[in-house]
Amino acid sequence: MTRYPADQLTAWLVTLFEENGAARDVAETTARILVEGDLLGHHTHGVKLANGYLSDLKAGHASGDPQRLVIEQGSPVAALFDGNYVLGPYLVQRALDQCRKAAKDYGIGIVSLKRSHHIACLASYLAPLVEDNLVPIIMTSDPAVASVAPFGGTERVYTPNPLAIGIPGREQPILIDVSMSTVTNGSVNKARAAGQKLDHPALLTAQGTPSNDPEAFFAAPGGSILPLGGLEFGHKGFALGLMVEALTSALSGFGRKDAPSGWGASVMIMVIDPARFGGTEAFLDETDHLVRRCLNAGQIDPQQPVRLPGQSGLRRRATYLKEGIPLPEDVVAELHKAIGDSSLRDSVSLG
Amino acid sequence: MTRYPADQLTAWLVTLFEENGAARDVAETTARILVEGDLLGHHTHGVKLANGYLSDLKAGHASGDPQRLVIEQGSPVAALFDGNYVLGPYLVQRALDQCRKAAKDYGIGIVSLKRSHHIACLASYLAPLVEDNLVPIIMTSDPAVASVAPFGGTERVYTPNPLAIGIPGREQPILIDVSMSTVTNGSVNKARAAGQKLDHPALLTAQGTPSNDPEAFFAAPGGSILPLGGLEFGHKGFALGLMVEALTSALSGFGRKDAPSGWGASVMIMVIDPARFGGTEAFLDETDHLVRRCLNAGQIDPQQPVRLPGQSGLRRRATYLKEGIPLPEDVVAELHKAIGDSSLRDSVSLG
Repeated sequence: MTRYPADQLTAWLVTLFEENGAARDVAETTARILVEGDLLGHHTHGVKLANGYLSDLKAGHASGDPQRLVIEQGSPVAALFDGNYVLGPYLVQRALDQCRKAAKDYGIGIVSLKRSHHIACLASYLAPLVEDNLVPIIMTSDPAVASVAPFGGTERVYTPNPLAIGIPGREQPILIDVSMSTVTNGSVNKARAAGQKLDHPALLTAQGTPSNDPEAFFAAPGGSILPLGGLEFGHKGFALGLMVEALTSALSGFGRKDAPSGWGASVMIMVIDPARFGGTEAFLDETDHLVRRCLNAGQIDPQQPVRLPGQSGLRRRATYLKEGIPLPEDVVAELHKAIGDSSLRDSVSLG
Repeated sequence: MTRYPADQLTAWLVTLFEENGAARDVAETTARILVEGDLLGHHTHGVKLANGYLSDLKAGHASGDPQRLVIEQGSPVAALFDGNYVLGPYLVQRALDQCRKAAKDYGIGIVSLKRSHHIACLASYLAPLVEDNLVPIIMTSDPAVASVAPFGGTERVYTPNPLAIGIPGREQPILIDVSMSTVTNGSVNKARAAGQKLDHPALLTAQGTPSNDPEAFFAAPGGSILPLGGLEFGHKGFALGLMVEALTSALSGFGRKDAPSGWGASVMIMVIDPARFGGTEAFLDETDHLVRRCLNAGQIDPQQPVRLPGQSGLRRRATYLKEGIPLPEDVVAELHKAIGDSSLRDSVSLG
């Protein structure tokens, strides 16, 4: 399998985004965040997305012009960003940079971002802040999409609503990126494309029966994704999904009530600096202690030791940075499409 | 069944706490928060706890002296509270009051509280802030207790780690209070005391087999509680449990590494004011829209319409305020013990 150097992939994407009108800064940030997704092994939310971003740039639904971002600074620690559908990775990174400064000065910084274009893989943003001993938190929903049903209901109302948080630690930093539903839209699409069933009955037919068949989701009338906790404890996943809706769309003032269409996101970005609370060293001591306790907590399956969130991603990242990223076929195919008739066509061989 | 007026219960508890050395303010806040738990129907985390609080006050593990709270103000929006085991409801209320002010002035306020005594029911704190169109968030862990195993592991490492958030809405405000595990320590204890099984296999034996038998938890070697998501999607509940550990104990600098004993809590308290972001009216519009969508999203069981988190609690509260609270037998028994040989003994008849 061909392995692609991360630098090379990033450079290609920068060229492609710039050719489609993105400013240097927007192109570079978006390229970096997409490649970061593949470095961590999240291939559905990495380079594979570039072709869709380029199509939206061409169609005018996405923008690469950073001037379109409008910032309303509510206080030194709080801001509302109107992203005006600038490419999401640029907007989220700008918000994180601002929150990082606020966190260092005040202990915490928060940005509510509305009308962002798609923001890729949440885990991709965490590492640089965690390495600086800060705690980044990102939540997002897409008010243009409904795929998850409320607990007890059968109709799609909201999105999987992922939450990401980075937890600094000396031995094993923790990178969390989990949705508040059993599975994501991406997993359902992927299983369907592969003609496979899901591992677990994470879906609900329109008639209210659990199913592991992705076709149940796409039937007419359509099925839905179950909240985290499923039929037994799904009231908790439902509650957490509502939390993300409130802290993203409601907080930004723009959401489902506005019936937007196309690829978009409402996002909450927050950074906390432990130095302004119990202190950085004590924070790291506690994380290290907890990590050791978790890794030594026995194992249900002798072949499957306990892993901390982000542990395999970070290990993969280290390997891929040295040896290149082994991109899955579907990602290479999308990259091919993205390159299309660009200036890269003659110089790039995708193997 | 005897119904107890909320005011009467509160007055009794104030007397009891004051008789055991609590300052007026501490006694009143603690009494109010405990009764609020019963008003919302959370009888395991209401008045029933008073006897335990009184025992800890007598034994010197809890304190009713507000002077013992030490505040380190990291910035106008961020503070570290060292609770010194003052009764938890007083400490959390103090933190919320401070965060409310910061949120109004800066959009957000955050307090990290370490070495609190027990903080009762998280949902009990939310309504007054939500009625003021603010978003309160509370998370807590108890570093002295371990009952949940990491995903894939068999040994207890951390606590159910609840998260609470209040979401303002005109038609139906949302009060969320959910743990990041399948069930709580309280549910396991309650089922055991009643000689009943749990509704679902939410426990794991020490050998790594799922079980609905509370005795599995108390066996030697002991079992554990499964993270939210169970054996299928428990990596998500585990991740969320770690998030709460980090934002409570690690952030405060005091946690499992310090091996505390006795009833206690690490807590994160946060308040956000939508007025400093997309605006209060837009926030309420979005909540109202989402609530309607959820309530009209069909139903799996024709007998069980979709309910929003807090919906039945708030309805119950309105009824109980008018008609009195029908306390379960076990709560009345604990209240009897709490009254013991206090000055109330001759004047109170518990029916």
